[in-house]
Amino acid sequence: MALVVMKFGGSSVGDAERMKRVAKRVVEKKREGNRVVVVVSAMGDTTDDLIDLSKQLTDQPSAREMDMLLTTGEQVSVALLSMTIHTHGEGAVSYTGWQAGMTTEAAHGRARISDIRPDRIHKALDEDKIVVVAGFQGMTEDGEITTLGRGGSDTTAVALAAALKADLCEIYTDVDGIYSTDPRIVKVARKLNEISYDEMLELANLGAAVLHPRAVEYAKHYSVPLVVRSSFTYNEGTIVKEDASMEQGVVVSGIAYDKNVARISILGVKDVPGQLAKVFTALGDAGINVDIIVQSGVQNGKADFSFSTGSSDAEQAVTILRGMQNDVGFDDVTSETNLVKVSIVGAGMVSNPGVAAKMFDAISSQGVSIKMVSTSEIKVSCVIDADKFQDVVRACHTAYGLDSTEQAFVGGPSERR
Amino acid sequence: MALVVMKFGGSSVGDAERMKRVAKRVVEKKREGNRVVVVVSAMGDTTDDLIDLSKQLTDQPSAREMDMLLTTGEQVSVALLSMTIHTHGEGAVSYTGWQAGMTTEAAHGRARISDIRPDRIHKALDEDKIVVVAGFQGMTEDGEITTLGRGGSDTTAVALAAALKADLCEIYTDVDGIYSTDPRIVKVARKLNEISYDEMLELANLGAAVLHPRAVEYAKHYSVPLVVRSSFTYNEGTIVKEDASMEQGVVVSGIAYDKNVARISILGVKDVPGQLAKVFTALGDAGINVDIIVQSGVQNGKADFSFSTGSSDAEQAVTILRGMQNDVGFDDVTSETNLVKVSIVGAGMVSNPGVAAKMFDAISSQGVSIKMVSTSEIKVSCVIDADKFQDVVRACHTAYGLDSTEQAFVGGPSERR
Repeated sequence: MALVVMKFGGSSVGDAERMKRVAKRVVEKKREGNRVVVVVSAMGDTTDDLIDLSKQLTDQPSAREMDMLLTTGEQVSVALLSMTIHTHGEGAVSYTGWQAGMTTEAAHGRARISDIRPDRIHKALDEDKIVVVAGFQGMTEDGEITTLGRGGSDTTAVALAAALKADLCEIYTDVDGIYSTDPRIVKVARKLNEISYDEMLELANLGAAVLHPRAVEYAKHYSVPLVVRSSFTYNEGTIVKEDASMEQGVVVSGIAYDKNVARISILGVKDVPGQLAKVFTALGDAGINVDIIVQSGVQNGKADFSFSTGSSDAEQAVTILRGMQNDVGFDDVTSETNLVKVSIVGAGMVSNPGVAAKMFDAISSQGVSIKMVSTSEIKVSCVIDADKFQDVVRACHTAYGLDSTEQAFVGGPSERR
Repeated sequence: MALVVMKFGGSSVGDAERMKRVAKRVVEKKREGNRVVVVVSAMGDTTDDLIDLSKQLTDQPSAREMDMLLTTGEQVSVALLSMTIHTHGEGAVSYTGWQAGMTTEAAHGRARISDIRPDRIHKALDEDKIVVVAGFQGMTEDGEITTLGRGGSDTTAVALAAALKADLCEIYTDVDGIYSTDPRIVKVARKLNEISYDEMLELANLGAAVLHPRAVEYAKHYSVPLVVRSSFTYNEGTIVKEDASMEQGVVVSGIAYDKNVARISILGVKDVPGQLAKVFTALGDAGINVDIIVQSGVQNGKADFSFSTGSSDAEQAVTILRGMQNDVGFDDVTSETNLVKVSIVGAGMVSNPGVAAKMFDAISSQGVSIKMVSTSEIKVSCVIDADKFQDVVRACHTAYGLDSTEQAFVGGPSERR
């Protein structure tokens, strides 16, 4: 008898009708002969509503109390889903994170799972019950309630699947699976049958919102067989696994984009060793993530540097750099926002020369110039002006032969938590 | 340094503004030099909203899952109150029932507290923090979340006060204290400065909704000094304690009424021993509470019986009795609803003859006839037609010299949970 972990996000249980549909789906899975553990997020806008409520009371809510507050959202979901499953005559029992044995570090709002003790889950499964677990939450060794932060419910599902040695972890969402790119931009985006953990990780990190990178990391680390599929259709989803079978001739599997990009340039930096380390240490201390770093050649003992960062961090980064101008010694700092990073990802890239060149061609064919480039073994990223980024994504999609013959199914708004 | 437990009901924390007022009040109590533990109910209509949500999904929600669902309401309240207290610069920490060590029996929806292990509360108080505890909830020895049922938050507060050996337990509500009768009916109802546990218990059982009888029982059993006062004013409330100082000449302390009364009459019961026991055993097995029982004299080997019960139980009671007609042997069953039980309560009653007679006078002065009577050492109850019950309450209030010289303060709608 197979053990399956099914995860449903907030929009999948957004109202009573959707909750009923999820219950039916879960019961079907059980009656196909599986042992079933379900992980659920908070219903629809619940989390945002709770955050709004807290904002009416304080500008600086303590992270501990926010965890107390927000974890109620998933607790409501699991109780309701459990009682809805009962209407089908199936046994079901709901557990909060702590009841399910999700033990975490003490970092409120972004706790990492340190241990899972699923004794109660095993016991309930042995009693032929469907187990419904609140996603996104856990408890410290001291009995404090914690949340796992963004992507938490995906992580709960994958981590539970690993701890329970589940045969499959199904992530139900509002799209049919992982697409070659965002179907809202490219109508002929292709649904992938399989993708490797590494490719999925790059896509997730590069802006594909279907799966959270942390959950993918977890799945890769524990070799959890993962499927991403729709909670609204019975279509087959996308399998995420170690060695996805390479489709013939497919070098690039997917195209991701990130609209939240700024470029900061530091002009005329004195070519003294250690100056750059100073700059990036200061930025790191301020919690500013730096992505791509580019250095121009040295002229007259001076060099220009550029780096990309999240556009919301750009202003703070410039302020920090201005404060270091005399210490580090450079001529000026400039920043540029309204940029997009477009990335191609594919495990087959490493053995195929000319992949990057094809991307540059596709970009220039749209009359767009490339501002920054970054490469790894399985991806190429280009930072470009935002104005025509959709055309660029479409041109790349076509250039790598990804266009499907049929239009993609696109459900409701994307859910990610 | 005194230890004070403050309890705030759902309407006291019904919105952000009220939550802020409660936080201010709590901080004031702390800054007066007290160690403070706060017990809070779910905000306003939260509990009803959650119940409505469950009704959209199932007609018969499991009691366990309802407890999982409803306990989120208080968890939201404690988190929000705690972060609001922080805005005053005071340390505060929120606990769910299980975190606060509230251990209960396994009866979901109506669990009784079996033990309290307030280690975390003591520790937090020692760290100079205000402790905010979710009312109405606890955990079984097996780690199942439970609720205490109606009056649960009052009970949480009183039980915690007992376990912590608190110097005072303050129940904040939307009225100024315990009144001689319902101020909505008698404008000149008098606020009582003190009342004994026994009188309060009778009043609570007889329909006064300010305090739940279970909480009063608990307070009496553990001699917890109790104050009932308004969360909207700084007026002194009513002290509930063992030996309330008797005000001169006050024989009756309060007048309560219960509008939810029906009378069932069983006519022509054969005078055979054990028949009545059969009847009331059957009613008890069906969960029907029987209050007053009256038997007429025996004539021709037959007697008539009447008993009062809740009007919502009347129909079921009649059905059960009809089913027993041949077995028990009686002529007919009749039922009468739209009745009210009016009760006078006072510890001074037992030593004062003629107290009941004065009540009968007051009732007949309104042209109302008495249908049933019941007495105890500290109360007299009369069941009458509902039509003129308000006049009767007013007449009794005047007859026992309870009318105040000033009008009562009446806040928002009554809260009871």
